[in-house]
Amino acid sequence: MSEQAIDITDTPLLSSIESPDDLRKLSVEQLPQVCDEIRRYLIRSLSETPGHFASSMGTVELTVALHYVFNTPYDRLVWDVGHQAYGHKLLTGRRNRFATLRQMGGISGFPNPEESEYDSFSAGHASNSISAALGMAIASRIKGEQPRRNVVAIIGDASIGGGLAFEGLNNAANTPNNLLIILNDNDMSIDRNVGALRSNLAHITTSRFYNDIRYKLFKLFKKCGLVTEHSRGALLRFNNSLKSLISRQQNIFEGLNIRYFGPFEGHDVATIVRVLSDIRDMDGPRILHLRTTKGKGYAPAEANPSVWHAPGRFNPENGERAEETSSNDKPIKYQDVFGNTLLELAEKNPAIVGITAAMLSGTSVSTMKAALPERVFDVGISEGHAVTFAGGLAKDGMRPFVAIYSSFLQRAYDHIIHDVALQQLPVTFCIDRAGLVGEDGATHHGAFDLAYMRTVPGMIVSSGRNEHYLRNLMFTAQNTTSGPFAIRYPRGAGNIVDWHNEMHTLPVGKGERLVDGNDIAVLTIGPIADEAAKAVAEARAKGIDVAHYDMIFLKPIDEDILREVAAKKCSIITVEDGTIEGGLGSAIAEWLTEYGYGDIRVHRLGIPDKFITQGTPAQLRKLCGFDADSILNAISSLSSKKTQQ
Amino acid sequence: MSEQAIDITDTPLLSSIESPDDLRKLSVEQLPQVCDEIRRYLIRSLSETPGHFASSMGTVELTVALHYVFNTPYDRLVWDVGHQAYGHKLLTGRRNRFATLRQMGGISGFPNPEESEYDSFSAGHASNSISAALGMAIASRIKGEQPRRNVVAIIGDASIGGGLAFEGLNNAANTPNNLLIILNDNDMSIDRNVGALRSNLAHITTSRFYNDIRYKLFKLFKKCGLVTEHSRGALLRFNNSLKSLISRQQNIFEGLNIRYFGPFEGHDVATIVRVLSDIRDMDGPRILHLRTTKGKGYAPAEANPSVWHAPGRFNPENGERAEETSSNDKPIKYQDVFGNTLLELAEKNPAIVGITAAMLSGTSVSTMKAALPERVFDVGISEGHAVTFAGGLAKDGMRPFVAIYSSFLQRAYDHIIHDVALQQLPVTFCIDRAGLVGEDGATHHGAFDLAYMRTVPGMIVSSGRNEHYLRNLMFTAQNTTSGPFAIRYPRGAGNIVDWHNEMHTLPVGKGERLVDGNDIAVLTIGPIADEAAKAVAEARAKGIDVAHYDMIFLKPIDEDILREVAAKKCSIITVEDGTIEGGLGSAIAEWLTEYGYGDIRVHRLGIPDKFITQGTPAQLRKLCGFDADSILNAISSLSSKKTQQ
Repeated sequence: MSEQAIDITDTPLLSSIESPDDLRKLSVEQLPQVCDEIRRYLIRSLSETPGHFASSMGTVELTVALHYVFNTPYDRLVWDVGHQAYGHKLLTGRRNRFATLRQMGGISGFPNPEESEYDSFSAGHASNSISAALGMAIASRIKGEQPRRNVVAIIGDASIGGGLAFEGLNNAANTPNNLLIILNDNDMSIDRNVGALRSNLAHITTSRFYNDIRYKLFKLFKKCGLVTEHSRGALLRFNNSLKSLISRQQNIFEGLNIRYFGPFEGHDVATIVRVLSDIRDMDGPRILHLRTTKGKGYAPAEANPSVWHAPGRFNPENGERAEETSSNDKPIKYQDVFGNTLLELAEKNPAIVGITAAMLSGTSVSTMKAALPERVFDVGISEGHAVTFAGGLAKDGMRPFVAIYSSFLQRAYDHIIHDVALQQLPVTFCIDRAGLVGEDGATHHGAFDLAYMRTVPGMIVSSGRNEHYLRNLMFTAQNTTSGPFAIRYPRGAGNIVDWHNEMHTLPVGKGERLVDGNDIAVLTIGPIADEAAKAVAEARAKGIDVAHYDMIFLKPIDEDILREVAAKKCSIITVEDGTIEGGLGSAIAEWLTEYGYGDIRVHRLGIPDKFITQGTPAQLRKLCGFDADSILNAISSLSSKKTQQ
Repeated sequence: MSEQAIDITDTPLLSSIESPDDLRKLSVEQLPQVCDEIRRYLIRSLSETPGHFASSMGTVELTVALHYVFNTPYDRLVWDVGHQAYGHKLLTGRRNRFATLRQMGGISGFPNPEESEYDSFSAGHASNSISAALGMAIASRIKGEQPRRNVVAIIGDASIGGGLAFEGLNNAANTPNNLLIILNDNDMSIDRNVGALRSNLAHITTSRFYNDIRYKLFKLFKKCGLVTEHSRGALLRFNNSLKSLISRQQNIFEGLNIRYFGPFEGHDVATIVRVLSDIRDMDGPRILHLRTTKGKGYAPAEANPSVWHAPGRFNPENGERAEETSSNDKPIKYQDVFGNTLLELAEKNPAIVGITAAMLSGTSVSTMKAALPERVFDVGISEGHAVTFAGGLAKDGMRPFVAIYSSFLQRAYDHIIHDVALQQLPVTFCIDRAGLVGEDGATHHGAFDLAYMRTVPGMIVSSGRNEHYLRNLMFTAQNTTSGPFAIRYPRGAGNIVDWHNEMHTLPVGKGERLVDGNDIAVLTIGPIADEAAKAVAEARAKGIDVAHYDMIFLKPIDEDILREVAAKKCSIITVEDGTIEGGLGSAIAEWLTEYGYGDIRVHRLGIPDKFITQGTPAQLRKLCGFDADSILNAISSLSSKKTQQ
């Protein structure tokens, strides 16, 4: 869809806002209309251009209030994860490009500093906003910038549970800074046990008058030596304790001695403007707690916010989603093959437990959760804990299957080494969204797992070329006692409709020859075998004597295959849906040069050594040069070179 | 020293304890004497066999009480980090081997499951105990083990500030389990603002009678439907708030709804036994907070606990430490070359800030801190935050130098990718303790940084062969705007007394030919060049025409050198103080096979693909096969093979 498709007479205020400066010219009384127009714009635009819907609907008032009160982009807004920043994009000069959302060459689904100066920091992996914003606040202080530059981190109630957010809070509480943290609480995961007294109390403590008095007294006392930094902490704590008792609420922010305001209703834009204005110029770190509703303003989304997190195309009038109809004629998603198989294995093997880090449905661990709830653990956004926790379970006899998206598992690299591999514990890492993921772009591509898992001593690293092999690898992993076992699989569906094969054990470290040949050997790992198979078939049709091997295991690598290929003096093309720095091609190059196998070339196809943009997986494979056409070109090129020699 | 060196008539009780079963036969009244004997044993043993001193002196009473009250090893003790577990080792059958502490073939300085069934989980990297112990507690519940297996995590007040510990606490608070967490608080970093009321109150709440009543009431109410899990939380919070108000203390554990007991005096063994007995059989997660003194019972260590963290050899009578006398004739440590150079650069470049994660003196960032305190940030044990925080600082114009030990930086792999490299931010990673570190063993070797840093797009990865090159790389990094820059350097000292050279810029991606030759080329990175240089000199003396190149940069790699070597058809030996899976040798093998350089062999020397034990660095280099002798053997072997061809 394009800008023209939206009736701008229906969004007169929004259409007049080319930048937040225009927003700031409006009166507070006009802001509810701006919010209303943003919502209508989002509904219509996202009904045609799929994206993350419910989160951004929930932050409309907050977004308008932030740009109204703060002097963006001089003042910094740091959005955590960034699903919720679509309204922010509409207000900051990207309305005309909004229809290109998440498309190749279009605007990102996340804040992206390359896209706009209003996007202060990269977003995508949860819980980084407080740490990054603290860095910015302190940079400004060191530089002595005038006027004071305000820095605001906006973080959701799920993200704030991540260890990184806690580390940021902990440091923010102990370092002089003026960071404002906004807790966008749209869930039940933060304590809700709040009496009516609470908002009154919060109102009092946020009035400028009250705070002026408190701070002036404090400064006076300090000057007179009556109060020290230490006793100031004690005073703050006493105040906080009193508030806790009265409101019967205790929260961890007060335990960290960060001033806390809230909770406030997050859909009352005038109130948010008032509160933000009150607390904007205060000194010291502060938390403002807002209660919001995911999907706010669109009834179907409010009723079922998790379905409407990313609903795909839908009819804006009635909320009917243009879901891909599930059909017995179409392959199901890899994650569902995994989820169904996990349950199938767990029903027979009582030692199996399932672990996910806030991606219960995203990984389809939900399937096992529904049937065996006592043996499934959703630990929230805490990938490091998920892995160490799995280590503890495995140490005392369980067989944990830890399902985490590839790019998020990067958070647990040390935990994999120190808390699992060092003790050779039988944890199975089920690495979902491995390889190029498509529209989520650079922050979400699972580009590194093959390379970083290969560095880990004793780790078995594998990827099946289709659903049957995924199942066989899972079956094999549960019976492997030698240590950890990693299985990667991609986002989306494969090709096999009848995925439910009879499982059997695969020999660890053994690949398979799919096509024999004597001139060139294509070595692949994982479902990218499909692209290679097409290229190999075409090349053979052209008379090139090309072989195709599916390695299945990156580690241990199948040396028999390598010896076979080396003995034939084949040139080698490796294809992997992962970075070429340190992955499959690298392992094969190491082996060949170690044993001095003649003049064999290894041409590595995969994700090049840079960050890859958003687009459809097919577009991106072409961009990276490992779609079927590119593989065919590589084959042809090596073949002709060989002929010329 | 050996067991015989200690007068066992002086430790009659300890000498009778071969396992905790023997301890449990004693009366509570005898325990203070056991504690006293452990202290004397530690003083004498560690005065001759260097190790971590002050931490273990501070946990003597806790250790004795834990083994007295709990049925170890059936009940699990999970020590965090493990510096403090020497007393535990003495009580669990390792007294006779204690003199082999931290030596090759001897007992580990940390709990190590391979060493004893009393060591439940690997320790070394901070903050993992709660997550691992939670896994064990839940494994026991799932298995329905009888009698109930108690699991205890023992964590210090610094480690509990790590994000992983918070993730563990957060999960423990929300999952049914009986985990007991002991907070060993020997510092000021946890709130100390506690009135006299506090311990009385804690005493009341830990009495079995009180808790029996409370739990029986709770169960009765629940049976009647008068209380739900939700309202139980509210009741707990109300109690906690009341306690907070009265004691004027607020702490984050109560915010997480974990039952909290304490603080108690951690050197009163009878009290700890009583409290542990009281709370041992309670249901639900609990925290017991003990106040201890690092170095307790040895006056010099109590007076200066950080110096006595790991004091080296000392005179037990008077506390005189057999420090290596600093001298102008000896090279200083690499970390001090780094620390002094950081200050030197920062004094001229106001954008430079220094960041460390709880290793202010360990990294010598303390040198800059003393002179420029406003521009140095010790963020505590939170490597992930350190890196994301640096990203925020860099985004707004600072030039952060982040100094973290190699093995701990593994915690920040994702943060390096997502919060720094993705935005090409100019953060300098100063990777201390890179390569084999010696006596700290498997958990602490900096084995992986070359390999994992190489996977990161846009990362410059470097290591100078001596102190001058370290300084030049730091000088170069501060002027590099293309993105992040990693500089690794080892533990300990190099060879150059006069380290303070005039700094200059090095060309990024350019190595140096140190010795020319035409038969074999040795390619090294970092100070391991010294070992290679010895081997090359000896080989040349034997008539082997061997060249030596210092690559300086792993990424970007110097292709001119590779072309030069390839043109000569030299066999290549790569030497790196890091894993051979994915490091320097791998990068070179990739390049050679990509360009089809004939029959060039690449023999990779470095840390093999397994976890490496403790020992002196020289012993370990020999074990791993990259000391001078091993390099010489490799040269000779390749040379003779070449001759045979």
